[in-house]
Formats: sequence, structure tokens, C-alpha cells
Amino acid sequence: LNELEFIAALRSLPLHPGADGLRDDTATLAIGGETLVLTHDAIAEGVHYRAGTDPFDIAWKLVAVNLSDLAAKGAEPIGVLIGAVLIEGAERFVEGLRSILAEYGVPLLGGDTISVSPATFGCTAIGRAGKRIPSRAGGKPGDGLWVTGSIGAAMLGFEAGDGAAYLRPRPRLAEGKALAPLVHAMMDISDGLLLDAAHMAEASGCTVAISLADIPIAAGANPIEAVTWGDDYELLFAAVADFVPPVPATRIGLLAAPGAAPLLLDGQVPEIPLGYQHR
Amino acid sequence: LNELEFIAALRSLPLHPGADGLRDDTATLAIGGETLVLTHDAIAEGVHYRAGTDPFDIAWKLVAVNLSDLAAKGAEPIGVLIGAVLIEGAERFVEGLRSILAEYGVPLLGGDTISVSPATFGCTAIGRAGKRIPSRAGGKPGDGLWVTGSIGAAMLGFEAGDGAAYLRPRPRLAEGKALAPLVHAMMDISDGLLLDAAHMAEASGCTVAISLADIPIAAGANPIEAVTWGDDYELLFAAVADFVPPVPATRIGLLAAPGAAPLLLDGQVPEIPLGYQHR
Repeated sequence: LNELEFIAALRSLPLHPGADGLRDDTATLAIGGETLVLTHDAIAEGVHYRAGTDPFDIAWKLVAVNLSDLAAKGAEPIGVLIGAVLIEGAERFVEGLRSILAEYGVPLLGGDTISVSPATFGCTAIGRAGKRIPSRAGGKPGDGLWVTGSIGAAMLGFEAGDGAAYLRPRPRLAEGKALAPLVHAMMDISDGLLLDAAHMAEASGCTVAISLADIPIAAGANPIEAVTWGDDYELLFAAVADFVPPVPATRIGLLAAPGAAPLLLDGQVPEIPLGYQHR
Repeated sequence: LNELEFIAALRSLPLHPGADGLRDDTATLAIGGETLVLTHDAIAEGVHYRAGTDPFDIAWKLVAVNLSDLAAKGAEPIGVLIGAVLIEGAERFVEGLRSILAEYGVPLLGGDTISVSPATFGCTAIGRAGKRIPSRAGGKPGDGLWVTGSIGAAMLGFEAGDGAAYLRPRPRLAEGKALAPLVHAMMDISDGLLLDAAHMAEASGCTVAISLADIPIAAGANPIEAVTWGDDYELLFAAVADFVPPVPATRIGLLAAPGAAPLLLDGQVPEIPLGYQHR
């Protein structure tokens, strides 16, 4: 099975209603009049970070990518469970955890520790949803498409030998919370702007048309490389065409009725890989 | 850092009140008038299962060890998040998941999938607590000590080449739910009966005195080996001396005021390792 076939097989299992058909990065759990948002992401040595990475940065990235999933739902983090691995330099892992948990005011709820090499770390983040939880499927023809921050800094950081933008992404929690009640669709950018935009368009039953010149590219980055690289963890969102975002964001395109392809770049179907292709 | 030092370092982080000082296998989360019980355990190839294990059994064991943690709290499972790895034979992994989720009526909430070798799988299980959530710290001098089922079947299964008792432990969810309102302390047996009993005694500020002859040993198992092996996932619980358990269980000892050692076996401090020692 490849990853898409595997996920299709998982969809045949008994799913919780809050799993939403495994179509999104998060699940919801309605409980006692509240709604929790739950997400789990693992990161592995040699896949998501290089061998020899400072364990401080492993801890930061592990928590950041999970908080980013909460950000895309406008959820307020309640706590994290950590599936830790006892590695060389574990003190630095604890310090990295301390740093990101303090930065975003998130307490540690629990988890477990194993010894295995190469290491795979897991994190489950739990958040409290606001009144609206945007999905990636809510975009409508005529919507504008926006992105927070700039694209490509993570790629530059990686190429420069694991710079901060690659290893210490900053989940857009405040921005996500401000946007969630207002937007039609939202997701974080993890696999590449173009690929994630195409996913939003497909989930929303639309085509997305993006203008390359409108995308805010990190200084020094090649635009095409930047928009097909991942790991920026900015927020991508669709809203009514005349939307004025309450947080800094750049309009990069619009959604239209579905056409021949889910994504057009400067009016053309791109003939390049749109982002990180899961095998 | 060794594992105990690592966990001590984690205790210096900002902890959620429901983390209970990381003293237990689970965390609690009070939300909307309900209390959730949360647990996360990972299992790795070469550590928790052998390379070449049928992926069906990996999936079963992954979920079972997490449900066993819920069982020890008397919690009713709500759902699981799976940190999956795309391995050879992933169809069998999905079938194993289907089997255990159906057996215990637990739906899949979400998770993620990565590609890495050797594989480490994670699971977060979420349950709804009953009115009482027993900890391992509630034992009192004078309490009796009981165990469900028998001890050693997992060891025999392992030695026989991965038999069902080793690979497909059966979490004692029904028993845990029946016992939780009634017992003083409860935990599941994962690291070895003697070691886990010593942990309960230490957490409770007691000494536990166990009679080897009273322990129900699986047919064919060497008693001392059986009680120092793990993976049985039976429930160990302390309750008032004249307690009549509402589920099948065997009385194996009692709690007393703290003495020279947390555990006495037939009146002596054992001079053997009590169970699986985390390094």
C-alpha cells in the first residue's frame, strides 16, 4: 500500500464522528458542551530532521508542528502528550520542550518514554475549539485566498544547515484564533504552498488560481522552489472576496468553480510537483 | 540521562494539573463537567515486538497496551489516535486495528502516517472516567492486594515464538470499570508483577508483602520468572482487607506500614530484579 491507499484502508475502519472521515489533520471531540480539537504528528530522525540535530530543536519542532494543526482550527492549546525517546543529549530535549511550552503557554499533560534508534518522537496536542472550527473543505467559488507571513524561509533555513526557520517554526496560534470565526476554509502549510492549496481546492470542490507574483517569498528564495517546499507552517485561508483579514496576511489568489485541475498558477496547470509527495 | 533522570527533568516543566506530577501512566482532563483520561504509549520494532512480526499483531498490541492504561483507571474508551508507520504489509496492520477496535467497541479518531524504518508506532487513547479514578498511590496499610487473571502467559507466548498472550494482550476494560469505584489503588501489570507491585507500594507509602504460592501462575511457567516478566496486562489492585472483588481475581498479599523495602516476597526482600528495568 502507498500512503493514499493506506489512508483509504483506514477509512474503512469504525471511525469516530469527530474523525470527519480522516479528511483533515485534526479530530474533534464534543464533550459536556465543549469541543476539543485533537491532533497527533510524529517526527523521525532522517525523515523530519537530520541525524545530529540538537535535541532542543527536535523538541521544538515536534510540538510546533502539532500546535500548528491546532492553529489552523483556531483552537486554544490545553496540553500536549509527548511520546519521547531517550536519546543522547536528552537534557537538551527537555530544554527545547521547556522553551516552546513556555512560549505558547502550553502545559505538559503526559506521555511515555522509550529507547529506540533511530528515534521517532510523537506528540498529541489537545486544544479547546472556539465557536467555529474551519475545515479545509469550506472554500467557495469567488472566495479570495490568503497566506500569513512569507514562504520559503524554512527551505532557506534547511539549505543553510538547519536554520531557525526550518527547525523552529512558529505556529500561528494567535492568527488562527482570530481568523477561525471569519474564514470559509483554513489549513496550515506543511507540504508546500501549492500542494496544500490544491488540497484545499479539491476538498472544497473548487479550482484555486494563484498568482506567483503575489506570493510573499522570503528574501533570497527562488519563488518556484519556495512555493513547492514545505515546513513553513504559515496559515492558508479562503474567505469572501472583500475580506479584510484581522491579522497580517497577503492575498495570493482566488477560488473558482472546479475546472480541469485543482490548481492554476498564473492561469496554467503547473507541470511541476506541487510539493512534498508522500509515497 | 537515564530514564528516571529524564522523567525527573520532565517534571521540572510546566505541567498540567491533570498530569498529576507525571506519577501515573495517564493524565486526566476535566472539561465541560466531564473528566477524560488520556494516555500515550509507543511501541518500536526490536524493542516491543520482533522484526518480522505480523503487522496485525503490531496494531493489536499498540492499541491494547493503551486501552490497558484506561482499564486501570476504570475509564470507558472514547477513541484512539494512531501514529502509524507505512510498513510492508500495511493491510495487515489495518486488519489488526479493525479487529481490536471492533472487539472493544472503540472508534478511530485520527492520527498520522509516516515512513521510517525501523518503525515506531504511537497511540493516544482517550477515555471517559467514571465517578472515581483510582491511582496507584491510594493503597493503605492493612489493604489486601489482588490480581486479575494469571501471570506468565505473555512470557510463555514470547518464548514459544510470539504466541497470542504476548502479542494480543486483552485489556481488562470491563474489570477495571467494575473495580474502579471500589478499590484504593489500581494499575496494570506491564513491567512485571513484582516490580509493578513495588511501584504501587512506594507510591502509596507502604510495603507490599506477597506470597509467591498465592500468585496464579500460568500453567507451565516458572513462578519466579513469571512474576518478574512483564506484558501480562492484568490488573493489580489494593482494597480493604475483606473486599470481595466483583470480578474474578486472586488475593496475593497485603499492604503494610512502610519498612526496609517496598516489597517482601514470602517475608524476604527479594535479591532478584523485580521486573523489566528501564535503563
